[in-house]
Amino acid sequence: MKAAFYERNKTIRIGDCTPVDPGPNQVQIHVSHCGICGTDLHIFHGNMDHRVASSQIIGHEMSGTITAVGSGVEGWAIGDRVTVRPLDYCGECPACKAGHSHICMKLKFIGIDSPGAMQGTWTVPAHTLHRLPPNLTLEQGALIEPIAVAAHDVRLGELKAGEYAVVQGGGPIGLLVALVAQLEGARVLVTEVNPFRIALARELGLTVVNPLETDVVELVNNETGGAGADVVFEVSGSAAGAELMTKLPRTRGRIVIVAIFAKPPQIDLFRFFWRELRLCGARVYEPEDFEKAIEMAASGKLPLDRVISKVLPLESLQEGFHELEGGGEVMKILMRCS
Amino acid sequence: MKAAFYERNKTIRIGDCTPVDPGPNQVQIHVSHCGICGTDLHIFHGNMDHRVASSQIIGHEMSGTITAVGSGVEGWAIGDRVTVRPLDYCGECPACKAGHSHICMKLKFIGIDSPGAMQGTWTVPAHTLHRLPPNLTLEQGALIEPIAVAAHDVRLGELKAGEYAVVQGGGPIGLLVALVAQLEGARVLVTEVNPFRIALARELGLTVVNPLETDVVELVNNETGGAGADVVFEVSGSAAGAELMTKLPRTRGRIVIVAIFAKPPQIDLFRFFWRELRLCGARVYEPEDFEKAIEMAASGKLPLDRVISKVLPLESLQEGFHELEGGGEVMKILMRCS
Repeated sequence: MKAAFYERNKTIRIGDCTPVDPGPNQVQIHVSHCGICGTDLHIFHGNMDHRVASSQIIGHEMSGTITAVGSGVEGWAIGDRVTVRPLDYCGECPACKAGHSHICMKLKFIGIDSPGAMQGTWTVPAHTLHRLPPNLTLEQGALIEPIAVAAHDVRLGELKAGEYAVVQGGGPIGLLVALVAQLEGARVLVTEVNPFRIALARELGLTVVNPLETDVVELVNNETGGAGADVVFEVSGSAAGAELMTKLPRTRGRIVIVAIFAKPPQIDLFRFFWRELRLCGARVYEPEDFEKAIEMAASGKLPLDRVISKVLPLESLQEGFHELEGGGEVMKILMRCS
Repeated sequence: MKAAFYERNKTIRIGDCTPVDPGPNQVQIHVSHCGICGTDLHIFHGNMDHRVASSQIIGHEMSGTITAVGSGVEGWAIGDRVTVRPLDYCGECPACKAGHSHICMKLKFIGIDSPGAMQGTWTVPAHTLHRLPPNLTLEQGALIEPIAVAAHDVRLGELKAGEYAVVQGGGPIGLLVALVAQLEGARVLVTEVNPFRIALARELGLTVVNPLETDVVELVNNETGGAGADVVFEVSGSAAGAELMTKLPRTRGRIVIVAIFAKPPQIDLFRFFWRELRLCGARVYEPEDFEKAIEMAASGKLPLDRVISKVLPLESLQEGFHELEGGGEVMKILMRCS
């Protein structure tokens, strides 16, 4: 069967690989689709070579069908349509013992720290599985993982129906955060600078402004009777976003850090003091976020087919990376793995 | 009667002033003692001239006895021993309407935005009063306001008995945060660089290290089985404190911003993402924090008389400021106002 190997130096090699039989408590999945995540792009650019082995198979936003079940696995059978929550935790560290195993202090992210899904079959621990309902296509199923990221962000932001949320950044994750927040009943404003992303988000029914053209603070204050936003999701990862995020929330409003800031930005801590703002970081997801994502996707109320810009054969993965890094007119690209 | 007037240019004038009769819903208080707050020092240095009128009477950490009661005041009588929660709010803004009147968007802080307590009698709205129990001296009563700040910080930090807390900065507020946290049953570590403050905090039974001499991250990890601190109170207001604060908390640990950061420091937002840290700002206090502060002070379990370094006559206020800004061997200075 075919697999996509990361060979460093911005090179993907498509080659043969051998299916792995499932060991105890594992299942083998026939991989249908696998999305390209921003993290995969980071890997492609060499930014994560300290974690990703050379010639490693990457990918983790997937859907598929179980082809073999290892010993000790209960509740799963050949033919089940599934997606994978790609987190392998130690169960022993202080974070795991405190109930936060999704951000285990020794977390192995499957597809980064160990082989990923961009291959014909993928063998993973059974505890990572979530069932796809019949009314979701396998293409749509490959979006469950990033939707779960968005569901986690919205949950940690404690967003309630009727609240006003600002999502800073309208890339794949920002767009999904905005769609999930809107589906939860919030009023949502997206800030984004890229014209394609602005146009797509508007097509999907979101309110979007370009912060280079619109005074976002004034707009948010006008929309909230002078109070400010209830929640701000910072998904841009930019210094401008880090500066804007503290100007928008109401008294005791919340900020959720979704983006990865490689460099510590300057933050207006006085504003936190003055308005008693709250901030939290949000990383990956917990099982309930996957369940929520599946429920939302299955409701048919998320425009998933418009989020998927194109579906390419696995052999075209390197072209997919070039398209994403070129800032072209793409949102989410899925690879057809079999 | 005498009063202390702020005359700008680092000048305090002690002069005569006329008692103000209480209007409707006001009381007149014979002021016993008034502490010098860090905010008063900021006023003295001219940093708050945009808010403080010239020739204004300052001061707000006070105790006293009611001498006259205006019309419409219920529950208060001449002779009652009281302290004042010096917050005057509008009741109309979005913050007030959301139940956060203590940080009203048009908050008038009595003693900054209007005349303060460093005078023979002080006339204030009756809604600001809290009763001092008989077993508190009036000197001790003048510490209720800063203890209420500490109680608010600890409450917003959601600190629970048995948790491990780090207090960055051992000045008057940091010291009180540490003492309140310890009284709440937390294990407390104070970080401080000033030798007098280190020695005093140790005398009061606190564990204190100098972060220039001790690897605080290593110490905290050792003390918490590698997990990290449950809560960090940042009271230093320094760039070094802003850098250290994100290295100390456990997964999902909390940071409370107590200090005023005049300049936005660089903050490691990646750490917030990675450990799903939480941060909140904490400003002034709510009525329940004053009640908690009075309850704690009245329990006799806070070493209040050691926190008060000296009591000076009102005429010596300018000397008091010089002593505080000189970094001398003083923690809290009280002025005897009558």
